[in-house]
Amino acid sequence: MSNAWTESFSTLAKNLRPSAVSGLFKAIKNPKMISFAGGMPAPEVFPIDKFAEGAHLLKDRGSELLQYGTATEGDSSLRSSLIKFMAPRLGRTVDMEEILLTTGSQQALDLFAWAMFDKGDAIITEEPTYMAALNVFSNHGAQAVGVPCDAEGMMVDKLPALIEKLRGEGKKVKGIYTIVNFQNPGGMTMTVARRQKLAQIAGEYGVPIFEDDPYGYVRYEGEHLPSIFSFDKAGNTLYAGSFSKILSPGVRIGWVCGDREIIRKMSAFKQSTDLCSSPITQALVAEYCEKGYLEQHIPVIADNYRKRRDAMEESLQRHMKPLDVTWVKPEGGFFFWLKMPGVDCEKLMTICLEKMVAFVVGTAFCIDPEAGRNYCRLNFTYCKPDKIEEGIRRMAEAIQSLRK
Amino acid sequence: MSNAWTESFSTLAKNLRPSAVSGLFKAIKNPKMISFAGGMPAPEVFPIDKFAEGAHLLKDRGSELLQYGTATEGDSSLRSSLIKFMAPRLGRTVDMEEILLTTGSQQALDLFAWAMFDKGDAIITEEPTYMAALNVFSNHGAQAVGVPCDAEGMMVDKLPALIEKLRGEGKKVKGIYTIVNFQNPGGMTMTVARRQKLAQIAGEYGVPIFEDDPYGYVRYEGEHLPSIFSFDKAGNTLYAGSFSKILSPGVRIGWVCGDREIIRKMSAFKQSTDLCSSPITQALVAEYCEKGYLEQHIPVIADNYRKRRDAMEESLQRHMKPLDVTWVKPEGGFFFWLKMPGVDCEKLMTICLEKMVAFVVGTAFCIDPEAGRNYCRLNFTYCKPDKIEEGIRRMAEAIQSLRK
Repeated sequence: MSNAWTESFSTLAKNLRPSAVSGLFKAIKNPKMISFAGGMPAPEVFPIDKFAEGAHLLKDRGSELLQYGTATEGDSSLRSSLIKFMAPRLGRTVDMEEILLTTGSQQALDLFAWAMFDKGDAIITEEPTYMAALNVFSNHGAQAVGVPCDAEGMMVDKLPALIEKLRGEGKKVKGIYTIVNFQNPGGMTMTVARRQKLAQIAGEYGVPIFEDDPYGYVRYEGEHLPSIFSFDKAGNTLYAGSFSKILSPGVRIGWVCGDREIIRKMSAFKQSTDLCSSPITQALVAEYCEKGYLEQHIPVIADNYRKRRDAMEESLQRHMKPLDVTWVKPEGGFFFWLKMPGVDCEKLMTICLEKMVAFVVGTAFCIDPEAGRNYCRLNFTYCKPDKIEEGIRRMAEAIQSLRK
Repeated sequence: MSNAWTESFSTLAKNLRPSAVSGLFKAIKNPKMISFAGGMPAPEVFPIDKFAEGAHLLKDRGSELLQYGTATEGDSSLRSSLIKFMAPRLGRTVDMEEILLTTGSQQALDLFAWAMFDKGDAIITEEPTYMAALNVFSNHGAQAVGVPCDAEGMMVDKLPALIEKLRGEGKKVKGIYTIVNFQNPGGMTMTVARRQKLAQIAGEYGVPIFEDDPYGYVRYEGEHLPSIFSFDKAGNTLYAGSFSKILSPGVRIGWVCGDREIIRKMSAFKQSTDLCSSPITQALVAEYCEKGYLEQHIPVIADNYRKRRDAMEESLQRHMKPLDVTWVKPEGGFFFWLKMPGVDCEKLMTICLEKMVAFVVGTAFCIDPEAGRNYCRLNFTYCKPDKIEEGIRRMAEAIQSLRK
């Protein structure tokens, strides 16, 4: 019909391909589909009653909540609650000027990218990593450069040589992006020794760190580890959190903590992108936190998801281990990352969708898609254990039929 | 402290200056300040009780609303309501694939910019125009080119020569941005003849139009005019609306309607910027609309704001007219735009803030700041009539002291 649009699109828009995930979104709406695809919390664990206690706010504070937010940085009582909540993890109580609330932690990535990247700048990430972070970096003209990972997380010893190589090529290294706990998609957690080392390298080389931690509070066993932020005496680390996995994605609230200068820049870009986040959802979450419900709820989530993780681990042992599939058992978070030697994950996906099981192909998480060719990411938090067993059984069947 | 940040900022971030408005935000928090500055609705007219009727949704549909939104495009029942609501204005009922809900209409501008601009592309705007639109365009590397306005809106007859000139310079003209009704900051409304002409020019030259209409439903007298969208048979027009001025800015919901291709691209960029808007506020607004409350509420707003507009008009006649200040009386919307010959608005601002009156300086709305040097934008919806009279009186005093 209209050519004015298609002829006028930006280069980015012209080159947009439907993402691996957006196609999936339609498939997983089929209620018969067993979905290991999305990073979605289980609806059964939402604290609906306690959250809904805040409903009175719509009336009692209506004239304030229906208005524009008074601060781009977000609701001050929610910021105060988060500052207390995070102090053990961050090693100190940050100031009010060191925290910014965002419209989900996805927005934190976008604002970080606005503040940091000129076209052609480099950002170092784990490989594999969160696909939507790769999209943001790429949209903003940055080049993501991957560092391999093992069961202890990003292999940080490789960083000095990589930074020097990139600088030798004339590139500016604008950040190191890491998902420290129960990595997406890898499932592994960076060891304390590597966190310390990473903070030290960032300090020596003057490279900022984006420490993304949406899953960190969802731990099934073992001790919480101190953040990179807590080891970083130079103030080079921006720590990002989210309510999506510990309370609700629907509230669309994430946060970032760090140096005042970067917080101020991100806040300025927030004004251009959505002015402010909703005072309504912020007030609901603030009251929920002030009542102490968040701390009470986290163990409930962990207990529920631990069972699901264990169910998936057992099903994998039963059906996948005989097929030479390998993985790191995650101590928390949402995902298993399966290595399937000799299996093309995109072909596997096609067969699995016919069998009504969905997952995300490994290629989606890799800067070099070929690096993810033999991998799949499986979410275990959304499905109940009986579905998990059935889904893994079907996937194993699909692998066998592919190998024939 | 940390140099890794300041040394690593993007060129954009380095060049960011505190906006004219963000400084003001602090000043207007002083309860003694008479603020004509923000484009804020009056808290007295928020339909708090009717909106709060939706509180039951937090409990009754908790497991759905606390989850990620099922569609990036937004809540389908809210999209359906908006399609019906807008049909008279748009001249037809658009399809579900032709509408996208956004996190406030500010996000619609950002997504449009993602979809359209490569560095150096041109976007034609009214001069003066909405300052936060200019920021978005500039952040995305586009060059805004202004077209002067008179009491009938953008002088569209100037467009063909301007488009040809820009094209002759090798520029791609990626859009024409217009605030058709009760323009921000100008207050004037584009005539029907100019709307038709604009649609025709856009068709002939193959240039998309962004028809921004946050104020259109807030009309104090006269008939609603058909949209440019309704005259555009080529489908070159994207129409944007918002709940901010007719219900609540706190819900953070805007919308855009237009060609499926541009909607699809904007939706893809939305996934990178905030994944989805909050299902909670969308559901609250959807129920409010389904009950027919929106249509009932709009006349309530208009009645309230008409009195405030008339109060400001009377005060301006009394205090400003003798000072050779001129303006177009707005038939709707939120703003008066005052021309003050010989008065430097930035100097005026400094004096007025001391007198505890705030407004926005004209320079903030102009591509060439000098073009706005003798202008001020005054909001009349936020203050009650007695405050309006007092504020205008003080401003007139300030002008007299400046001219001495």
